[in-house]
Amino acid sequence: MEFSAKKIAEYLNGSVEGNKNTKVSNVSSINDATPGSLTFLANPAYAQFLYTTKASIVLINKDFKIEKPVNCTLIRVDDAYNSLAKILELYNKYLPEKKGVSKLAYISKSAKIGKNTYIGEFAYVGENTIIGDNVKIHPQSYIDYNVKIGDNTKIYPGTKIFDRSVIGKDCIIHAGAVIGSDGFGFAREADKNFKKIAQIGNVVIEDNVEIGANTTIDRATFGSTIIKKGTKLDNLIMIAHNVVIDKNTVIAAQSGISGSSKVGKNCMIGGQVGISGHLNIEDNVKIAAQAGIGSNIKKDKTIMGSPAIDASNYKKSYVHFKNFQRIINKIEELESEINTLKKKKKK
Amino acid sequence: MEFSAKKIAEYLNGSVEGNKNTKVSNVSSINDATPGSLTFLANPAYAQFLYTTKASIVLINKDFKIEKPVNCTLIRVDDAYNSLAKILELYNKYLPEKKGVSKLAYISKSAKIGKNTYIGEFAYVGENTIIGDNVKIHPQSYIDYNVKIGDNTKIYPGTKIFDRSVIGKDCIIHAGAVIGSDGFGFAREADKNFKKIAQIGNVVIEDNVEIGANTTIDRATFGSTIIKKGTKLDNLIMIAHNVVIDKNTVIAAQSGISGSSKVGKNCMIGGQVGISGHLNIEDNVKIAAQAGIGSNIKKDKTIMGSPAIDASNYKKSYVHFKNFQRIINKIEELESEINTLKKKKKK
Amino acid sequence: MEFSAKKIAEYLNGSVEGNKNTKVSNVSSINDATPGSLTFLANPAYAQFLYTTKASIVLINKDFKIEKPVNCTLIRVDDAYNSLAKILELYNKYLPEKKGVSKLAYISKSAKIGKNTYIGEFAYVGENTIIGDNVKIHPQSYIDYNVKIGDNTKIYPGTKIFDRSVIGKDCIIHAGAVIGSDGFGFAREADKNFKKIAQIGNVVIEDNVEIGANTTIDRATFGSTIIKKGTKLDNLIMIAHNVVIDKNTVIAAQSGISGSSKVGKNCMIGGQVGISGHLNIEDNVKIAAQAGIGSNIKKDKTIMGSPAIDASNYKKSYVHFKNFQRIINKIEELESEINTLKKKKKK
Repeated sequence: MEFSAKKIAEYLNGSVEGNKNTKVSNVSSINDATPGSLTFLANPAYAQFLYTTKASIVLINKDFKIEKPVNCTLIRVDDAYNSLAKILELYNKYLPEKKGVSKLAYISKSAKIGKNTYIGEFAYVGENTIIGDNVKIHPQSYIDYNVKIGDNTKIYPGTKIFDRSVIGKDCIIHAGAVIGSDGFGFAREADKNFKKIAQIGNVVIEDNVEIGANTTIDRATFGSTIIKKGTKLDNLIMIAHNVVIDKNTVIAAQSGISGSSKVGKNCMIGGQVGISGHLNIEDNVKIAAQAGIGSNIKKDKTIMGSPAIDASNYKKSYVHFKNFQRIINKIEELESEINTLKKKKKK
Repeated sequence: MEFSAKKIAEYLNGSVEGNKNTKVSNVSSINDATPGSLTFLANPAYAQFLYTTKASIVLINKDFKIEKPVNCTLIRVDDAYNSLAKILELYNKYLPEKKGVSKLAYISKSAKIGKNTYIGEFAYVGENTIIGDNVKIHPQSYIDYNVKIGDNTKIYPGTKIFDRSVIGKDCIIHAGAVIGSDGFGFAREADKNFKKIAQIGNVVIEDNVEIGANTTIDRATFGSTIIKKGTKLDNLIMIAHNVVIDKNTVIAAQSGISGSSKVGKNCMIGGQVGISGHLNIEDNVKIAAQAGIGSNIKKDKTIMGSPAIDASNYKKSYVHFKNFQRIINKIEELESEINTLKKKKKK
Repeated sequence: MEFSAKKIAEYLNGSVEGNKNTKVSNVSSINDATPGSLTFLANPAYAQFLYTTKASIVLINKDFKIEKPVNCTLIRVDDAYNSLAKILELYNKYLPEKKGVSKLAYISKSAKIGKNTYIGEFAYVGENTIIGDNVKIHPQSYIDYNVKIGDNTKIYPGTKIFDRSVIGKDCIIHAGAVIGSDGFGFAREADKNFKKIAQIGNVVIEDNVEIGANTTIDRATFGSTIIKKGTKLDNLIMIAHNVVIDKNTVIAAQSGISGSSKVGKNCMIGGQVGISGHLNIEDNVKIAAQAGIGSNIKKDKTIMGSPAIDASNYKKSYVHFKNFQRIINKIEELESEINTLKKKKKK
């Protein structure tokens, strides 16, 4: 795939400064670009690289002032970062698209398969499952019985989606994700053995949700574990039984949410965060990476630490923690001064 | 599946208060139940919902005193929570059961397959492997050569069980779990390169163990990594080479145990806990979520923090950590008072 | 497989003390060895077990002085631990080797497959993919289109390797690993919805790299996520888009590295470590388990804590944290002494 500066500028409603026929076939970052690649300048901290970059084309904001001669063709746009995102999307569309239903897939006779679907080799689609239009079920995926998958959803290889799960439209489920495994529920008996509590609920994933690679979402004990519209989960996340995550929340990799907790809308949760069970995290909460949440969190809070507290409070306390030896020295000094004062007294 | 109050009461040895013919086809929680569903009241904190619930049937303890009229049919039982668990189990039994050996599975001729087994599509069973009776090997599972799997064990889709693993009876291995991958063992050489230490041991999982989705259990360098009877591991857990976990221990999601550590009986380990290598965690130890264990732990201890210490000590210290700024202010006050005292002295 | 002391000594350039015809078929640790097994004594702390072990053969350092009679055959070697590693490697070579291309695999006609490869049942190899010589692609693996895999590399069952990934020679990719899933990149729009940033880059893994079970490595947004020569990653690790990890670094299980961070050569990173995005961790850095890294780290540093600081500093501060109640008591004492001094003053 090769694009000229002229064509790219047209696509982005931008204007070319330099050779309109310059061609690129690749996207790079401005500091390690090679000839034949397109790059962008959005962060002023990288402005220095504009004058030395080997990229052939640079996307640049309309109002950016050039201070030295440049070796590349520039395309002036309203917002260089957004324009880059559009170019990435365009590039993606030119990648080969997978189509058709493989003869090497297993599809139950009672399953209903929409139009224009892709079902790859060694994929399994169970009884009475309903697959929407334009759905892509990549090789070696497992879709159990009575599952519903909405239009345009992509299921990457090796994903497992268990019985009675409901997946919305325009979702992306990455490789190796497990949706609908049993919740972790046991009752300890008098003899110390654990008796399994049957897990008869399901998982509901609404439209436009993205689930990361090897992430696991357990089915509800009864009722549903729910991930609402537009929420994005990164890789290796654990969502326990009966958790509900509201709309447009993002959760970074390796975080875990314990049974029956609720997470609000528009929350931003860092990586490796742990949230205990039966909690309520309200809307717009921000949680720093590695935090441990053991109590309800009110809306709009930013929290940090394990157990997590208000982030600015945590940071202050942590500064003192780092200086703990000096604080101890100070206390010892004070003690010795008091002793001196006491001795003087006696004299 | 629809059940009447009469039938449910008979099954639970309970007694009906209200319409014996009320039917339910679903289980819900008391606060968001819909008509046609059964619920339960075990936790007194939820008692208020009894008078407003839309559930058709509520399981309730024999001795519970009703204070207002209710709209639903009640079933009085000895223990409402236990009775609910029984209902969930009953419901589970009515779900469609998978049976038979698929023609699309690969089964080595030298493998021995027990009676009444299910082997799903695209599953792989290697040479000389022995599968017990009533075992369910779901689609796309991988069972290597010389593996033994005991009666009634369930292996969910996409599980990988490597050569010479031994899995007991009545176990459940959830989707995507990896059992018997190589231990992480290397020797650093003079040129800074790492040389792999061959990992020739295996994994032994005793009876009635549950292993969560995408959990990984490495084979021993030599000898066995062992998970003993009745122990339950949640999702995304890492068990390293030569670890031994004793009976009836539960470990929550995303915890990791490093090489050669031993964990005792009846331990309760929270989520995202890390245990260093070559340690001994004795029986009945409780470890709070996100704790980091760097030394041996005596039996019956409850620990918290990273590095973990006695939990009540940790909590006390953490209260002071949260108040660190105030403590610093206090120290500065004392310092200024001492300075005042010293000045007065001089006068 | 049974080996005599004579044969083992020859293989290791060692000398036998005792019966040269003693045979072993197994490897055990010295304290729980059974007859018929070989063990080793490298750590002096285990020397006591030499006189009671039930092992038939013990590998022992040339200069080790025996203080009591032993019941086993000894083999004297230059370095008992290295010799054991050689024996494990030898044992490994005798295990059955998998060969041939299964008729139950799907291999695109445009893929180029090297000599002496193994491609197992239900494996998928996409268009234009190039597989080197002696490569082993175990059952149910997924190798997408335009992938390159170097000679002698082993791909364990259920691994997924996405389009345009480049994997070097002599690599080992363990079961369930996902290489080349989309990076986690979104732009928040005015209406609070997230718009996906297309991820068009790839993953490059150089020679002699080992990737643990269920570990995920995301493709770059553009350009490459890179794991360099000789680096070893344990299980359940998350490597985000555009991360670069230099040569011969080891990372223990469940650690995560956020987008665009760079990790230097010869680093040692413990388990459950989190590294934020866009950071630079220089060569030879050591990071303690569970540390959280939020800033650049200079070479040769050893760090600990979350946020991580110099390890010796962290340890000192943590000692005081554990004693926080006593420190508070001391401050209160000082306060009361100052009050006493002030009162005396007034008199």
